[in-house]
Amino acid sequence: MKYGIVIFPSKNLQDMANSFRARYDSHYAQIPPHITLKEAFETTEVKELAKEIKKITKEINPFTLNVFKYSSFHPVSNTIYMGVQENEGLLTLQKRLNSGYFTQEEKYQFIPHITIGQDLEDDEFHDVLGRLRMKTINHEEVCDRIQLLYQLDNGSWTVYETFLLGKES
Amino acid sequence: MKYGIVIFPSKNLQDMANSFRARYDSHYAQIPPHITLKEAFETTEVKELAKEIKKITKEINPFTLNVFKYSSFHPVSNTIYMGVQENEGLLTLQKRLNSGYFTQEEKYQFIPHITIGQDLEDDEFHDVLGRLRMKTINHEEVCDRIQLLYQLDNGSWTVYETFLLGKES
Repeated sequence: MKYGIVIFPSKNLQDMANSFRARYDSHYAQIPPHITLKEAFETTEVKELAKEIKKITKEINPFTLNVFKYSSFHPVSNTIYMGVQENEGLLTLQKRLNSGYFTQEEKYQFIPHITIGQDLEDDEFHDVLGRLRMKTINHEEVCDRIQLLYQLDNGSWTVYETFLLGKES
Repeated sequence: MKYGIVIFPSKNLQDMANSFRARYDSHYAQIPPHITLKEAFETTEVKELAKEIKKITKEINPFTLNVFKYSSFHPVSNTIYMGVQENEGLLTLQKRLNSGYFTQEEKYQFIPHITIGQDLEDDEFHDVLGRLRMKTINHEEVCDRIQLLYQLDNGSWTVYETFLLGKES
């Protein structure tokens, strides 16, 4: 089965992201707005996987998510995103979920982001990005949990388990 | 914010349900296939809510989900569902999530089910239900977790937290 690990930001931020995604994101209906910590991977050992994730999340305290810009992955792809500031908690978490037990080939360098548009035609891509780049965004919130998801046959994702960050979880 | 509590069945059962939902369920894109344990309710105290749910789920062991028929809520509504056999664990869980701290007016008697069609026109409703009633279904699996969800402005649901059933969770 195919799994992935993400952060769902607050409802406010998800609603803001969805106001763009409804029009510009081909994956709008498949998953709520999210920050991907670990790209899709295959495993048949989900119980062990969950145990390993728990070990990691217990050792990492809640941290701040700061959304600070609109940007894109152009020319690699016509993906538009809300950029999330790097910080120690977030980077450590992502690193640990992609090394040791979790080692997996990473296709790209980790750039924390919330996708709000993808698979756009060139014209629309440049138009939307141009308009977004003139906006300012500076949103801060605390991230205190991550989610392990699995993918259904229709491409959508269901939550398997939530992991709270920090020792008290 | 509006919350709800559900069971997501196994991937297999979700895929089976989605094969109908894609055509017949107006809520297909808003939430994965699920068994509702507690209808939508409002609260601003989600941390306390989570604590109270944990108290309950710790005291209830994993139980069997047995999907045994296709049926409908006609004439109350044109909803078609997969019926889930009642059993002690499931009924106790549902009862405790709707009494005491969780008291809320229940609009309907609890009939455990996975919706696979809703908001259908009469003709299509009777046609689909007629065909499904000739099928047999007898699927068993273990339920070992429930999910607390919240609703976004677009009507879709995001998982806030997973609760594992039983003492060891």
